[in-house]
Amino acid sequence: MSKQAFHAIVAGVGGGTGRSVACRFARNYPVVLLARRPESFNDVVAEIQKSGGKALGVVADITDPASVTSAFETIKKEMPGSRLAAAIYNVNSGFARKPFLELKREDLDTSLDGTVRGGFSFAQAALPLLLESVPDSPYPPSLIFTGATASIKASANFATFAAGKFALRALTQSLAREFGPKGVHIAHAIIDGFIDTPRVRELMKDVDALDEKMIKPDAIAESYWALHTQHRSALTQELDLRPFTETF
Amino acid sequence: MSKQAFHAIVAGVGGGTGRSVACRFARNYPVVLLARRPESFNDVVAEIQKSGGKALGVVADITDPASVTSAFETIKKEMPGSRLAAAIYNVNSGFARKPFLELKREDLDTSLDGTVRGGFSFAQAALPLLLESVPDSPYPPSLIFTGATASIKASANFATFAAGKFALRALTQSLAREFGPKGVHIAHAIIDGFIDTPRVRELMKDVDALDEKMIKPDAIAESYWALHTQHRSALTQELDLRPFTETF
Amino acid sequence: MSKQAFHAIVAGVGGGTGRSVACRFARNYPVVLLARRPESFNDVVAEIQKSGGKALGVVADITDPASVTSAFETIKKEMPGSRLAAAIYNVNSGFARKPFLELKREDLDTSLDGTVRGGFSFAQAALPLLLESVPDSPYPPSLIFTGATASIKASANFATFAAGKFALRALTQSLAREFGPKGVHIAHAIIDGFIDTPRVRELMKDVDALDEKMIKPDAIAESYWALHTQHRSALTQELDLRPFTETF
Amino acid sequence: MSKQAFHAIVAGVGGGTGRSVACRFARNYPVVLLARRPESFNDVVAEIQKSGGKALGVVADITDPASVTSAFETIKKEMPGSRLAAAIYNVNSGFARKPFLELKREDLDTSLDGTVRGGFSFAQAALPLLLESVPDSPYPPSLIFTGATASIKASANFATFAAGKFALRALTQSLAREFGPKGVHIAHAIIDGFIDTPRVRELMKDVDALDEKMIKPDAIAESYWALHTQHRSALTQELDLRPFTETF
Repeated sequence: MSKQAFHAIVAGVGGGTGRSVACRFARNYPVVLLARRPESFNDVVAEIQKSGGKALGVVADITDPASVTSAFETIKKEMPGSRLAAAIYNVNSGFARKPFLELKREDLDTSLDGTVRGGFSFAQAALPLLLESVPDSPYPPSLIFTGATASIKASANFATFAAGKFALRALTQSLAREFGPKGVHIAHAIIDGFIDTPRVRELMKDVDALDEKMIKPDAIAESYWALHTQHRSALTQELDLRPFTETF
Repeated sequence: MSKQAFHAIVAGVGGGTGRSVACRFARNYPVVLLARRPESFNDVVAEIQKSGGKALGVVADITDPASVTSAFETIKKEMPGSRLAAAIYNVNSGFARKPFLELKREDLDTSLDGTVRGGFSFAQAALPLLLESVPDSPYPPSLIFTGATASIKASANFATFAAGKFALRALTQSLAREFGPKGVHIAHAIIDGFIDTPRVRELMKDVDALDEKMIKPDAIAESYWALHTQHRSALTQELDLRPFTETF
Repeated sequence: MSKQAFHAIVAGVGGGTGRSVACRFARNYPVVLLARRPESFNDVVAEIQKSGGKALGVVADITDPASVTSAFETIKKEMPGSRLAAAIYNVNSGFARKPFLELKREDLDTSLDGTVRGGFSFAQAALPLLLESVPDSPYPPSLIFTGATASIKASANFATFAAGKFALRALTQSLAREFGPKGVHIAHAIIDGFIDTPRVRELMKDVDALDEKMIKPDAIAESYWALHTQHRSALTQELDLRPFTETF
Repeated sequence: MSKQAFHAIVAGVGGGTGRSVACRFARNYPVVLLARRPESFNDVVAEIQKSGGKALGVVADITDPASVTSAFETIKKEMPGSRLAAAIYNVNSGFARKPFLELKREDLDTSLDGTVRGGFSFAQAALPLLLESVPDSPYPPSLIFTGATASIKASANFATFAAGKFALRALTQSLAREFGPKGVHIAHAIIDGFIDTPRVRELMKDVDALDEKMIKPDAIAESYWALHTQHRSALTQELDLRPFTETF
């Protein structure tokens, strides 16, 4: 077993999934949290540290390539000698639900920024580090992307939302085919359902048996950890995750 | 039968497909050709006029929403009283084949511009006109998009190319679900193979039996016309087109 | 142009699609109709002959390989010197809509018989003849299969129906990859909607605007003809056909 | 925590995957192994018992519904009071790789028997038991099916193999939609690669770096266990598993 130190990076920790993923990976690695504003990660950093883990929050605007580059330089300085074991892209891309003729070009750009454009910058920063980790990493170094139902089905009134999600899925497929043989595990999770967050609970408070209809963020995090720890002879590129109650 | 006049618009006529589609639709409708530079459409306009059809070239930068809006205003002025029967989006989105870490953010943006961003602007300009044509159009007013193998499979070294193509496909699916029930036919063609153009012939001149390995643009055009003339009770949202020799 | 005579074979002419396809192809070829009972094809044969076409009904149980072999021998005798230009597999596979635990093994076998097992026998009989036609046929010799929504989506309560349809789709994909390069066009049409037949009209008589919600069999037939006449440089392996009103 | 006892059933333990899955699940449950011949399960039963687990071999011909029923009756008698927590269908369906015109009807039937027909019988026997386990099972009672590359892509020369695999996949999708909301987890794993067994090692002994090109059965088993232990709010219906070296 190598004495090499490893860490994980989670981009997008405002919502429920990012927090849960960070906490789950923090049980094994120091975790870096990227978010646009410190308010998004401060509580999670504190929570991880309180439970004995190590966490570092770094401000980054994932839609700005220069900001991503700068964040990765900060990480390098703050974690000298540590290598990257896992990078999770979990950025919210907005959610414009509108008839097509009411959508604005900005709706499309916001969706693309939070999905494929952000994912592109994040992957370009993370992949050289993940490649370096291949020889010594306890598990195949992993780059995991969060997708949605709209990654594979473009419904009416979700044109821009689905466009971004489809594009991000394409990115992950292409990366899997290029970097899989080099030892990096690229995975894409299709989250098919509402995630149990305070905001969603408020929005859906009148739904019957609501508790059974939402995905628990901790359950997503457990599956991401299972993805990360897969043996390199049996890697998953894509899986779906949905509540048992969900129709599909 | 209505005495209403109808026309078609083809965006992207530089390569072989746009020219063939324009010529095929010109057998039934006056055709408007959109391209960034007049050199791209001048010959096709002349060819259509020579064979007795009507054609109009309009300069438009499909990646610039203002330019698309302006082009549609020009069309309205130039073709008073005529309605839109078919709009074909056939824009070239560039083709960066590179290892992911050599790709630039510009490669991604070029791909998105020529696919989903251009398609978005084009659809926003064309759909109100196509909706107006529903009651009188001889066939269901049609909005047809040209896709590629990379629309459904993201290969290694094609990350940005596939991202754009996936996103454009998402756009067409969402539009089909929204505008199909309103009477507009939204179709997406997956062109799986090299198209027989002088440029491709030159690039592949050493390939054996080359003539059997390329798609004839006229054959694509024939299938687009078959799509346009489908009865509204049996519309195709997506089909693939490939040479008989192609492996897939 | 060859002086060779060509004919088409349509398996499954009980319902609306088979009749329409036979009539459409009869405008260009003598057509052979296969059905289990003469009552299924007699009227269509008469209709085609009345309108000046040539038609021949042959009794065959598509689920019985010996019966299929025997039917093809009959066709050979009855149409001396004629070659096969197109074969359409349009057999009804039953439609058991039941909770899984109420389904019987017979429901599964009935579904498999009418889909992949029948299609297998039909393809084994037709393909040698289609291969012979490659050099002279006016269009790429074609083997077209009718699929359904359940070919790509297995809904609850349709386990056996979908199993057969998925299996038939697999057969067509594999055949396309093997026989496409040999010059035979293998196509699969996903019919996504109710077909306008007297029986469906009766079942759905209380549905509002029913006429807009059903696929016209003649429209399916037109698309099958368009498939058959595609140029070999641009063949479609799969397309969907649905009414403009259909949600998907 | 319930005091209820639970067990698992694995159908198909001749090859490498069945053995590994049985051993993995035996770390938590008594495991029943179904195979046509005792020689297929004797060693695995002994191995599990030696390592302190409980295992029971039951002879069953999965392609014969009566044999499956009888096997489940035997299990009921042999494990009084124990409930079913997980059932894994991992039956080998033969593997006819031949040009289509050389395939026999028997090749098709062998493929269907080992896939959808066997899976149908197995699911009909297992699902009532899994439903009973919903209230008390430590994890969502699970029915997991082993698929293959051919479950989603039907290559040339694999017509019958793919037909069976597609059909089995349809079965799992339909069951997921019906039994997911009732609390049973239905999953389908697409095994995309050669599995590391003595037989495959012998067949591929001349392949370079062979060890990196095969899936370790223990790695598949680990992912099946991860599937079984997913929280019901985030269940995976389908995932792929492939060696990091595999092209796809």
